[in-house]
Amino acid sequence: MTENERNDENTIFVGNKPPMSYVLAVVTQFNGGSDIVMIKARGRAISRAVDTAEIVRNRFVKDAKVKDIVIGTETITNEEGRSSNVSSIEITLSTK
Amino acid sequence: MTENERNDENTIFVGNKPPMSYVLAVVTQFNGGSDIVMIKARGRAISRAVDTAEIVRNRFVKDAKVKDIVIGTETITNEEGRSSNVSSIEITLSTK
Repeated sequence: MTENERNDENTIFVGNKPPMSYVLAVVTQFNGGSDIVMIKARGRAISRAVDTAEIVRNRFVKDAKVKDIVIGTETITNEEGRSSNVSSIEITLSTK
Repeated sequence: MTENERNDENTIFVGNKPPMSYVLAVVTQFNGGSDIVMIKARGRAISRAVDTAEIVRNRFVKDAKVKDIVIGTETITNEEGRSSNVSSIEITLSTK
């Protein structure tokens, strides 16, 4: 992955909003000239990140391909200082 | 993907049970001699499939690596004949 690909400007963080909010954000990135967009999520939002990538690819940016998918585990510390593990996903879509 | 890798015997379908049920199933496959296990899920269970892969990899089968991750869209027809789309994931873990 190049320095440019790691740029946060090209990254959409998926949370608890409806999937179409994130679809719009990804499509806007591609329409603004990006040829690569990363979709990241943690925990239960992982399913929504996959939905987002699939809706973008199937309906809006048909030349976008899944270039890479990475899963991982992040440690989160809550307000009481307790730490817990949460799964994460990074889906890279590319029109190159 | 070879014919052997597509074998359903090596595939764990993740649903709505607690993640450790599926972790146990995957670990059992590896301990039974498989060097490759596929974890599949649809819809909201996708997050649980990622949890399953991460827990197996980090805690139980430390030489297991994520060999491939494929996402897709499946069309489901309900009892009333209406069809809807659902995202899917296939995570391939390998100890080879």
